[in-house]
Amino acid sequence: MNSAALDDTLLSLSDPTRRAILERLSQGEARVTDLAEPFALSLNAVSKHIRMLERAGLVRREVRGREHILSVNPQPLDQVEEWIATQRALWKHRLRSLDALLLEEDRARVRTRKGKNRGPR
Amino acid sequence: MNSAALDDTLLSLSDPTRRAILERLSQGEARVTDLAEPFALSLNAVSKHIRMLERAGLVRREVRGREHILSVNPQPLDQVEEWIATQRALWKHRLRSLDALLLEEDRARVRTRKGKNRGPR
Repeated sequence: MNSAALDDTLLSLSDPTRRAILERLSQGEARVTDLAEPFALSLNAVSKHIRMLERAGLVRREVRGREHILSVNPQPLDQVEEWIATQRALWKHRLRSLDALLLEEDRARVRTRKGKNRGPR
Repeated sequence: MNSAALDDTLLSLSDPTRRAILERLSQGEARVTDLAEPFALSLNAVSKHIRMLERAGLVRREVRGREHILSVNPQPLDQVEEWIATQRALWKHRLRSLDALLLEEDRARVRTRKGKNRGPR
């Protein structure tokens, strides 16, 4: 797993404006100017956000004549989902081990109690 | 969806040391000192990372006597997965709409061609 790529993806996603830009682009391509308006951002501010999203590979830019058309690339999200899935797997494995341990302790306690009951009073 | 909570979660996850701490805690509880050693970090540096993870709700701290026991709380990861799932749904919906549009265009082209073929030569 490429850790630096995952860093970039997660950092890009950690800003609400950048997430909103991705949400917009998930619904269809847009020009930089299309994005600046609804978010009440300067062209400069929206460009900075887009550059960060491009760096993380979440947004692609296609130059058509004088226009820059932006589209979403969901592929880097795979690595985020994989990382989360791995954590859940580790965590579940640990819970199962804990369960097994507690069950073993319970059984040991029952055996001890039975052993005592069998003895003379 | 709580956007500020999602910001905190994603920002917390965007650092490789913090992800490594979570990976370690997913395998079982640990004390702050247990975490500092394998990561070759000062207690101060590891404490800062842990505070950020606690703020995002990804790590819980339990005080047992003089020891602070840390454990993982995977619940904030749900919101990350939900956000990604929403993006994928939007994106797939858009691709299906594009497919339908292209199919409609193809059909229109075939109809036009048939119309032309039917005409006199």
